[in-house]
Amino acid sequence: MKKRHSKKETIRPGLVCKGRIWIENNGETFLGFGRIVLLERVQEYGSISKAARSMKMSYKHAWDLIDSMNRQAQKPLVVTSKGGKGGGGAVLTEAGEMAIDYFNNLHAKLVAFMEQETDKLKL
Amino acid sequence: MKKRHSKKETIRPGLVCKGRIWIENNGETFLGFGRIVLLERVQEYGSISKAARSMKMSYKHAWDLIDSMNRQAQKPLVVTSKGGKGGGGAVLTEAGEMAIDYFNNLHAKLVAFMEQETDKLKL
Repeated sequence: MKKRHSKKETIRPGLVCKGRIWIENNGETFLGFGRIVLLERVQEYGSISKAARSMKMSYKHAWDLIDSMNRQAQKPLVVTSKGGKGGGGAVLTEAGEMAIDYFNNLHAKLVAFMEQETDKLKL
Repeated sequence: MKKRHSKKETIRPGLVCKGRIWIENNGETFLGFGRIVLLERVQEYGSISKAARSMKMSYKHAWDLIDSMNRQAQKPLVVTSKGGKGGGGAVLTEAGEMAIDYFNNLHAKLVAFMEQETDKLKL
């Protein structure tokens, strides 16, 4: 049985509308796709070093990104504890969870917009 | 007289939603913001070298971008003529004009989306 795609007959199959979105704070990046994945990994692993490793990112880079987000947020997105059995850990705060939800929602809207535009592409 | 922005009172003034959008063709960039500005400059100057110079871009880079767009478009977006009095020129085709209009329209929709989201930012 053949499927008919009458609306797509004038559309070139390889064309795709792509996009990227991020939040700046006075010109400095505050939240972006990679930063949000990092927050999600901190939530998952409870550790900045494990989160960094899972993304093949250096600990320093991960720490710099989290420090940048914490400095710019009204309340810290990640808090760390030093020492204790098994070393220090990192915990995502409620503000961190809100930032993840906010950004993923924004990203989903962008994806919907791009899909809509891809379906209309007739170049 | 003071203006009241009651809807914005919970919003941090420095936060801005930023974004970028482009069209890929089987994974290769076909149209993007810089490429569209280049097409507009070709239309304005009737010359790839003048268009490139106005963007502080090398002639080779401009030529490569136009070649990439022409190869991927169903009909060429720019046609060139060699020789003649004053050397060869470059002309934007109707397909080129359509590409500019299409992309600028898409970009305007993204800008509207980002402004809308910026007004809702409450992080």
